[in-house]
Formats: sequence, structure tokens, C-alpha cells
Amino acid sequence: MTATIDLAVSTVIFALRPDPADPDAPHVLSIPLVRRTRDPFARRWALPGGAADAGESLADTAARKLRETTRLQPAYLEQLYAFGDPDRSPTGRVVSVVYWALVRPDLADQAAEGENVRWFAADDLPELAFDHNRIVAYALWRMRTKVEYSRIAQAFLGETFTLSELRRVHEVVLQRSLDPANFRRQMEGSTAIVATDAVQTGGRHRPPRLYRYDTTVRLADNGPLTDAIPGTD
Amino acid sequence: MTATIDLAVSTVIFALRPDPADPDAPHVLSIPLVRRTRDPFARRWALPGGAADAGESLADTAARKLRETTRLQPAYLEQLYAFGDPDRSPTGRVVSVVYWALVRPDLADQAAEGENVRWFAADDLPELAFDHNRIVAYALWRMRTKVEYSRIAQAFLGETFTLSELRRVHEVVLQRSLDPANFRRQMEGSTAIVATDAVQTGGRHRPPRLYRYDTTVRLADNGPLTDAIPGTD
Repeated sequence: MTATIDLAVSTVIFALRPDPADPDAPHVLSIPLVRRTRDPFARRWALPGGAADAGESLADTAARKLRETTRLQPAYLEQLYAFGDPDRSPTGRVVSVVYWALVRPDLADQAAEGENVRWFAADDLPELAFDHNRIVAYALWRMRTKVEYSRIAQAFLGETFTLSELRRVHEVVLQRSLDPANFRRQMEGSTAIVATDAVQTGGRHRPPRLYRYDTTVRLADNGPLTDAIPGTD
Repeated sequence: MTATIDLAVSTVIFALRPDPADPDAPHVLSIPLVRRTRDPFARRWALPGGAADAGESLADTAARKLRETTRLQPAYLEQLYAFGDPDRSPTGRVVSVVYWALVRPDLADQAAEGENVRWFAADDLPELAFDHNRIVAYALWRMRTKVEYSRIAQAFLGETFTLSELRRVHEVVLQRSLDPANFRRQMEGSTAIVATDAVQTGGRHRPPRLYRYDTTVRLADNGPLTDAIPGTD
């Protein structure tokens, strides 16, 4: 059988945001979703994305669709997976190449929000369009297995951060508590982060030291490939 | 711009095989290639693959095309990457979803070979069709970064193996010598392999012990996704 196969791109963007269910609780892993205006799955929430464009790279299309729907512009997208089950769309065969990215809180705040674009806690989603719940579950798994061996936490923080802030990111991503003393020892013994001469201001008795990542190491090692998006670096 | 995008699937299959340049040398990482019979790139060697089929999952199409062209039937394919640069094919936009697999020597021997199907040393390829050299380079990188933390070497060996055989697989994949005593200590301290009661026969003075992998652990951890091919397990 040979019939048409449509190609789409979608993006899972993670940021640490206030929990919509409890704004006073610690921030949670969150993703922006877009409400569909058409069938199939009209009114359901879905990942930002759309049809691939013959003149654009897949990563460029993913970035453009993301910008058009949410106004978010991450500097780096990594390809997650091509989802291609024959029955994943009720209206014909659609293969979706999915990208993922992490966004710092200050950039996440610039996202459009309204009736049709909204941040959701990644672990507490409604029933999404297509197989998007499964896609988010896979993206969460990939991030959680990756945070321990690369610098993913960096993408959630600003240029500099305290060890407590860094530990909190790891705790949210890994969904478990980490012993502060052990974490400090581990990080101070690592070559990944570098102490700066600055401390965090705010009038506390013993202001905590600020650290930064060693930027000579790439955020996510994608080997000989790159999905850097032209013009956003 | 909206125009047609063709979707293809291709597969990179690695096996340890005799070096075509020196049949008496240690085995090398090898891949089977198929000679193209049509333009573009007629007569050039290319990865086994073809057009995606609207009624089949991507992994099923990859496995079928592989079987049809090379007679190889790996039990497990893992998705590598979707290659989608706008200019990767001279005759229109083609996005290729690429799978990879590892094949044991006894199964690799069953591959068709002839004028239009042949094994090549993966590190010594001619100029291939499309961007297939780049795809193989990425597959090599992915395998070399993965062999240290998962059980990839298992796929290159039979059910049981000696520690020398296991070390040789690691050496070929990682392209460096490993100290035999260190390697033995590391493997004996790992829970990944289990000593059997058997030794390798062959009339040597001190026949080496045979080991097997602990099969309760999956070969490659693909998380909540699976690309197992129905009917091949």
C-alpha cells in the first residue's frame, strides 16, 4: 500500500514554573500547550507544532511554529524522536518529528498566555490531542535519564546560581530529595561548575556564593549533529 | 512554501566482520550497503532502505526493506535520528528516519552478498549516495558513546563468550586497546555478566571460562518506547 504520509513537527518545551494547582508550592516542571481550533481533536490541548515545510530544516520549522504559537524562542532544540505509528491520527497517516528544549524562567515568562496557550504541569496533564501524552511522557523520561550525566540543569537557571538553586532544579527534574551536604560535595568536586567571586544579594546574614557552569562544555552533547537554530545564538 | 516532502527509512547495521582490506587482520566494525540502480546517485553505494509505507510503522518498514535487500533480520532496531536537511536529495525534499541495529557474526553471515550488496568497513567507506556518509558517522558516534553504559557488546557476540572476546568487541568499538587485567577486574565486578559453568573448548592448556550477559536487563534502554519488530523476537 502506498498512500500519502503527512510530516509534522512538534516541540516539548520544559521550564520550571509555579504550580498552577498551588501557586505557593515549589515550582514544577511545566510545558506550554496550544488549544486546537480544528478537528481532529478540536478544543483539546496539544504540543506546539504544525506541518513540515519543504523549504525549511525540521528544526527551523519546529522553532518557527513554536515562536508563532507561543512566542518562545529557545536557542537550542534537540531532536527527541520521530513518532510514526500508523494509527496515531484519526484522519490519515501523520509522522511527527518531535523536538525538545529547556527554557530559563525569565525567557519562559515571555511566552504568550491566553485562552488558547497555557502552561501546564508536565506531570499533571489533561488528555491531549493525538498521542501527545505519550510524547510528553517520553520527553520526561529522556530528560530525567539525561540530567544526571549532562548539564541540563543549566538551561533552567540564569548565568549564575547558588548551589541551593541548582539542587532544587535537580530535585524537581528527578522527583526526589537530595541531601544538601552530599550535593554540595558532589558539585564542588565536579569540574562542571565554577565558583564565582560574587554572592547572592538580598541582605541575608551569610549570603550564598554564586556559581556558573563551565561554558567550554556543550549543554547537550549531540555529537556530530547540531540543531542550533540560525539567528538565535 | 508548501511542497511535497517524501518520507524514507534507512538502516545502519553494524557487525564485526573480517576487514576487506586485510582478511587476516582482526575483525572490524562493518556495515552492509546496497548499490543504487537508479538516479539520483545511480551506481553509488547507499544504506538499505526505501520509501515509508502509509500502512506500516516506521520500524516495520525499516525491517522489511532491510530483509528485502540484504536478507538480514535483526530482532531489535533502535531509532537513530530523522535527517531532514532541505538539500540532502538533489531531486526533491526527502526526510529519512534512520534506524540502527547490531548483528551477531552468525546472523551477519546470512546476509545476501553480491554485486549489489556488500559489507564495508564502517570507518573506510567510499563516497555514498545522499548524506549517507554523515549518517554512518553519526551512528558510529552514537554507538561509541553508548557502548560504555549499556550492553551493546552483547549484540555482537553469541549467547556465551570469553572475557577476551568481550574485550576485543569493546576495543573494536571504542578504537583503543584496553588493559586485559583491568578489563577482567571491571567485568568481574559488574553485575552485567554472569560466569557460566562452561569453558571454551579447543584443546588449550587452560581453557577460558565462558560468560553470559544477565538477560534480565534490556540490551538498549529505550525507556517507555519500543521498536521491537513484531514476529522477530
